[in-house]
Amino acid sequence: MDANAKKTALRMVPYGLFILTGKTSDGRVAAATVNWVTQASFEPPLVVVGVKADSSAHGIIKDARAFALNVLGKGQQSVAFTFFKPTSVEGDTMSGERFRAGATGAPILESTPAFVECRLVDTIEKGDHSIFVGQVVEAGVAREPVGRPDDATLWLRELGEKTFYGG
Amino acid sequence: MDANAKKTALRMVPYGLFILTGKTSDGRVAAATVNWVTQASFEPPLVVVGVKADSSAHGIIKDARAFALNVLGKGQQSVAFTFFKPTSVEGDTMSGERFRAGATGAPILESTPAFVECRLVDTIEKGDHSIFVGQVVEAGVAREPVGRPDDATLWLRELGEKTFYGG
Repeated sequence: MDANAKKTALRMVPYGLFILTGKTSDGRVAAATVNWVTQASFEPPLVVVGVKADSSAHGIIKDARAFALNVLGKGQQSVAFTFFKPTSVEGDTMSGERFRAGATGAPILESTPAFVECRLVDTIEKGDHSIFVGQVVEAGVAREPVGRPDDATLWLRELGEKTFYGG
Repeated sequence: MDANAKKTALRMVPYGLFILTGKTSDGRVAAATVNWVTQASFEPPLVVVGVKADSSAHGIIKDARAFALNVLGKGQQSVAFTFFKPTSVEGDTMSGERFRAGATGAPILESTPAFVECRLVDTIEKGDHSIFVGQVVEAGVAREPVGRPDDATLWLRELGEKTFYGG
């Protein structure tokens, strides 16, 4: 296999940006920027997220058996960069971003336009990232998109001309 | 859960468009337009595809234990629409599109700018679509993208202002 061809072909997959969050029953909190996300079923509504196997979010979400995907909106580049770094919780803020507890306990960020919350229903651990399969159990829209919903989302390409996560 | 909020939040996930193909050892051929695709690991390189459980592609790819994702390029809307319909193979064309056999036997479409071929390494069958996990074993780029690779891909939104597959 030609490594450059693999990289180019895989980088042709377009991605949005999301803050993946979770909280265990003993109070450990995860928040990490992710882009490897797809829906995977309508009924039941399933989503798939690729999560770095050696990240703290990975262990926390496995323990919590639940997660939220907070959808970043256009212009929220700074929030994406914030959650590339380790998270610190102070009261009702995480790394300076206000949040509330969702139905699953996962933090819901107040600045993001929409979220889904999921029960973790399956996990495939075969690589440097694991595949988390979530069944959507709650959802909210704080700011209704004008026009197409996918146009309102912050896209990976908007983090910088040379920024990729994939390939 | 608010059904409209779920629909809007899930439709905020941006997607590219791909022709998913496969061929069994006894000659049955699948080709279907899909958009629920994400990378899920760098090493080994894994991808996830959501595949309609009652589709012919689903059974063929399970039997073949392999598949290709042919990445549609900008302007290939007609190819996307072609493979929403059942596929007919005649010689080296499928529904009028020229192809060759890839390393896994899966058809590689000559008109598309890039492809990856995968061994099917896991399947999660829990909904109206199944989650196929593929390990990338071959890749090719027929037309090197100018600029960002994800800008060269045909996006779901380019099929029409009201066209969605998700929510």
